[in-house]
Amino acid sequence: MRASADQLQQIAVASLEKRGAPHENAWLQAELLVEAELRGLSSHGLQRLPTLLKRIERGLADPTTSGIRQWRRQALVSIDGERGLGPVVMMAAMSELTLAVHSCGIAIAAIRNANHLGMLAYYAEAAALAGRIGIVMSTSEALVHPYGGTRAMLGTNPIAIGIPTDAKPFVLDLATSIVSMGRIHSHALRGEPIPAGWAVDATGRPTTDPDAAKLGAIAPFGGAKGYGLGLAIELFVASLAGSEMAPEVRGTLDETDPATKGDLLILIDPAAGAANTAALTRYLECLRSSCPAEPGRPVAIPGDGSHTRRAEALSAGVEVPDALFNKLAALAAA
Amino acid sequence: MRASADQLQQIAVASLEKRGAPHENAWLQAELLVEAELRGLSSHGLQRLPTLLKRIERGLADPTTSGIRQWRRQALVSIDGERGLGPVVMMAAMSELTLAVHSCGIAIAAIRNANHLGMLAYYAEAAALAGRIGIVMSTSEALVHPYGGTRAMLGTNPIAIGIPTDAKPFVLDLATSIVSMGRIHSHALRGEPIPAGWAVDATGRPTTDPDAAKLGAIAPFGGAKGYGLGLAIELFVASLAGSEMAPEVRGTLDETDPATKGDLLILIDPAAGAANTAALTRYLECLRSSCPAEPGRPVAIPGDGSHTRRAEALSAGVEVPDALFNKLAALAAA
Repeated sequence: MRASADQLQQIAVASLEKRGAPHENAWLQAELLVEAELRGLSSHGLQRLPTLLKRIERGLADPTTSGIRQWRRQALVSIDGERGLGPVVMMAAMSELTLAVHSCGIAIAAIRNANHLGMLAYYAEAAALAGRIGIVMSTSEALVHPYGGTRAMLGTNPIAIGIPTDAKPFVLDLATSIVSMGRIHSHALRGEPIPAGWAVDATGRPTTDPDAAKLGAIAPFGGAKGYGLGLAIELFVASLAGSEMAPEVRGTLDETDPATKGDLLILIDPAAGAANTAALTRYLECLRSSCPAEPGRPVAIPGDGSHTRRAEALSAGVEVPDALFNKLAALAAA
Repeated sequence: MRASADQLQQIAVASLEKRGAPHENAWLQAELLVEAELRGLSSHGLQRLPTLLKRIERGLADPTTSGIRQWRRQALVSIDGERGLGPVVMMAAMSELTLAVHSCGIAIAAIRNANHLGMLAYYAEAAALAGRIGIVMSTSEALVHPYGGTRAMLGTNPIAIGIPTDAKPFVLDLATSIVSMGRIHSHALRGEPIPAGWAVDATGRPTTDPDAAKLGAIAPFGGAKGYGLGLAIELFVASLAGSEMAPEVRGTLDETDPATKGDLLILIDPAAGAANTAALTRYLECLRSSCPAEPGRPVAIPGDGSHTRRAEALSAGVEVPDALFNKLAALAAA
């Protein structure tokens, strides 16, 4: 069925409030999920909500806290998320960095013990809209095999980068896996094979069977380089947040374990740099108007597709599977 | 011919000193180039020296300066490299950040108007050996086409990340192009075709002819994701350093123009974070001993290959083409 963003937001907020989330926290968590739906990223959308609600019911997620912030240096804050909701802890971290980034020009928050952040673009965009360069990284359960390896040893380790321009911010958001586990599940649901090179099965053999891939590991994107980047994020986050590394990470997908991954947020004040946002905008326009590989398919800037889909979905509504909508409506009432 | 690292270092130092470089600066610049040779990265090695010497003779590179450092915020320093040697300006920036990273936990230097940095791994490793997480980025002439595009609109935009562990540091160093222009030149010299997907020709058509590729553009690594990362680095560096963006960048490869690319250095104190270097080392060992895709080819950590090649070359010497060695010897004498 098709639902409006407002309708989905109301249902999600109600279901969170029913489980003890203060209105503000419920609103933010719901917005994160609905924004993912609006941008066509349903793998990070409302399908995550039932698990999160169960986690709240079981005490694995505490919707009332935004974590305990401890400043270790003038521009470095360590945050114990106290099992808080990912978006609540992260947005509190962003606020907490405000004064430090103003005086130091750059500041970093290292977060452990918080629940799933969802779509990282949300935070990078929020930072850029506030005039900051924002870099967000997160780790996850072991889902990705090393380049030249066969076992799930790394998280999908996404990174998002938001940079202010004169027009809408530049927002990049990518996982360091070649594809998300969500898309492999989608193929499995539709009974379609996955492309060669996406995954290996539980024995480490390359497979095009999505059900076998679910038990195996996803390839890193971009071969050795993407593997290197994902591994750097794994180490960088763990090194500062004190979170677990992939084989020991639990709690972003399950209903049984505390979340042991980590998150980083770096904010930088471009006004302390060159403050050349007009030049950035001109350059991006040059890129968009540069000669495409396929006539009629202009060169895109990361985030362009999300932006268009969001605008369409805001007016036309979001397509949500009936079963999911009914489940959410029931959870909002119960 | 085969030469020892010491011999190459002496020749490079002499050629730089002959052109007015103070001993310390000559030593550092030479070490950068020789270290690249030792690690098998000859594209960033001594073949770059004749161009650099010509740039010094023409006033495009000033071997006496380490740049002018201006603190804009407590942890953000803007550096005008004053046409200095890349390694000299970058290592001075690293020293300059010492106090700020101690008090703030994180600090950043944004550099413009400095010459080519060479192999970024050098700086990331230096930072990690000093107990800091180091992130280095740099931009370059337009050599890379956007994903879905056909024109050279982005630099090769490398990034290096160094992270201290209990054993040797983790050091990742990657360009965001699928391959370096240096390797395409090598194929051209040997008269060998390049693999499909590496490059397009001057008209934007995919090509396997390395000579045609030299006039065209290299693909980004990892498709849309690698393109996004390269573009983010392009904008991030320009935004803080006030450097030009790729189509306007000159001066890292030629003997005619001032260097207009930019560089960033971010240092972070992991002791202000989790200080869990032993855990990082254990995790990396788990990765190395995890089941490989090809029996007998263990999973590698970025930097492992460089490390091995360096150890071998230190004892066995470095293979340098006769013509290059003779040219360098002549430049050191003249």
